[in-house]
Amino acid sequence: MLTLYYTPKTCALATHIALIDAGADYTLKRIDFSKGEQRSAEFLAMNPKGRVPALVTPQGILTETTALLTYLAQTFPKANLAPTDPFALARLHSFTAFLSSTLHVAHAHGPRGNRWTDDPAAIQALKAYVPTSMTAAFKLVEDGMLEGPFVMGDTYTIADPYLFTMSTWIEGDQVDPSQIPRVMAHRAMMSNRPSVIRALAEEA
Amino acid sequence: MLTLYYTPKTCALATHIALIDAGADYTLKRIDFSKGEQRSAEFLAMNPKGRVPALVTPQGILTETTALLTYLAQTFPKANLAPTDPFALARLHSFTAFLSSTLHVAHAHGPRGNRWTDDPAAIQALKAYVPTSMTAAFKLVEDGMLEGPFVMGDTYTIADPYLFTMSTWIEGDQVDPSQIPRVMAHRAMMSNRPSVIRALAEEA
Repeated sequence: MLTLYYTPKTCALATHIALIDAGADYTLKRIDFSKGEQRSAEFLAMNPKGRVPALVTPQGILTETTALLTYLAQTFPKANLAPTDPFALARLHSFTAFLSSTLHVAHAHGPRGNRWTDDPAAIQALKAYVPTSMTAAFKLVEDGMLEGPFVMGDTYTIADPYLFTMSTWIEGDQVDPSQIPRVMAHRAMMSNRPSVIRALAEEA
Repeated sequence: MLTLYYTPKTCALATHIALIDAGADYTLKRIDFSKGEQRSAEFLAMNPKGRVPALVTPQGILTETTALLTYLAQTFPKANLAPTDPFALARLHSFTAFLSSTLHVAHAHGPRGNRWTDDPAAIQALKAYVPTSMTAAFKLVEDGMLEGPFVMGDTYTIADPYLFTMSTWIEGDQVDPSQIPRVMAHRAMMSNRPSVIRALAEEA
């Protein structure tokens, strides 16, 4: 049994979808950011980072989406969620790393500018620039990284729920959908996937 | 033969050290940021992200430090640079993901604030906050993530050259070394490692 700590509308959705794709036995625990539950003593004792997702496994807790996704692919090999060839796997890791360290970081400058400054005017300036940095990041995905129809080509992998999760932020971050038609086609395809429909329903 | 595109004093050092630890046959190509070589048409044709590190392999180019490090561990298994157990590997991936998406990102707000705003006052505000955010990130490493003496405990892994690389930024980012004695001990130990000495000499 795996337990996923999540908050709706966060990147935890990617791991949630992957749990379903993997065929894993899991339970969900919701962390309410509006009540500051991610900073509660109980949660911090388990996850000192004070963030979601966190995945409780029989061997201990794991954090960081990129690590969780690879863990699920490795522990549920029959689901075929990642290649085993080292180069192909490295390309997949390169994609997920870009989402976590560039695209997600660009997004976070909207709601979480206080991670990088305590100056109210600077926080507003960061918010204002999110459409620019998010568009640049999504254009890199659009123009080369996304092979299509799935991220890695013809085969669905853990990169797909991760990109889908980030692409639910497109309109909120004022990225012009007409500039990234291939990303939008990927999102539309993923929206019809049973694991995605089920995960969104469970978080609703 | 592998070719590493690098720039001194960047996170490319981690991959450089790991290449030596792996016993790989490699060549180095230096990219001069002061001349804008990372934005040259030639470099962008190979790596549209316009960043280092980039690793040219017989199968193609790879980017993102976390992906490169895992690739080297997988393709040079005799060097024993990463565990094969999925949970242990996920813990390692969680550590390297934290360095790339939190610690390195905090550092980048000093020299590269223009990734997230074009407002000169905000760029200065981001620079001023780097000691705070870098201290918080290094404290998480100090207080729980770094097992010691190596990152994952008794066994050297790809996480070690990565942490070493980040810890060369401590004084420049005004993190108080007395607050992170275990990180400083790790850095001192790593400084005496032949692969680290050689990599630093090759970049000098």
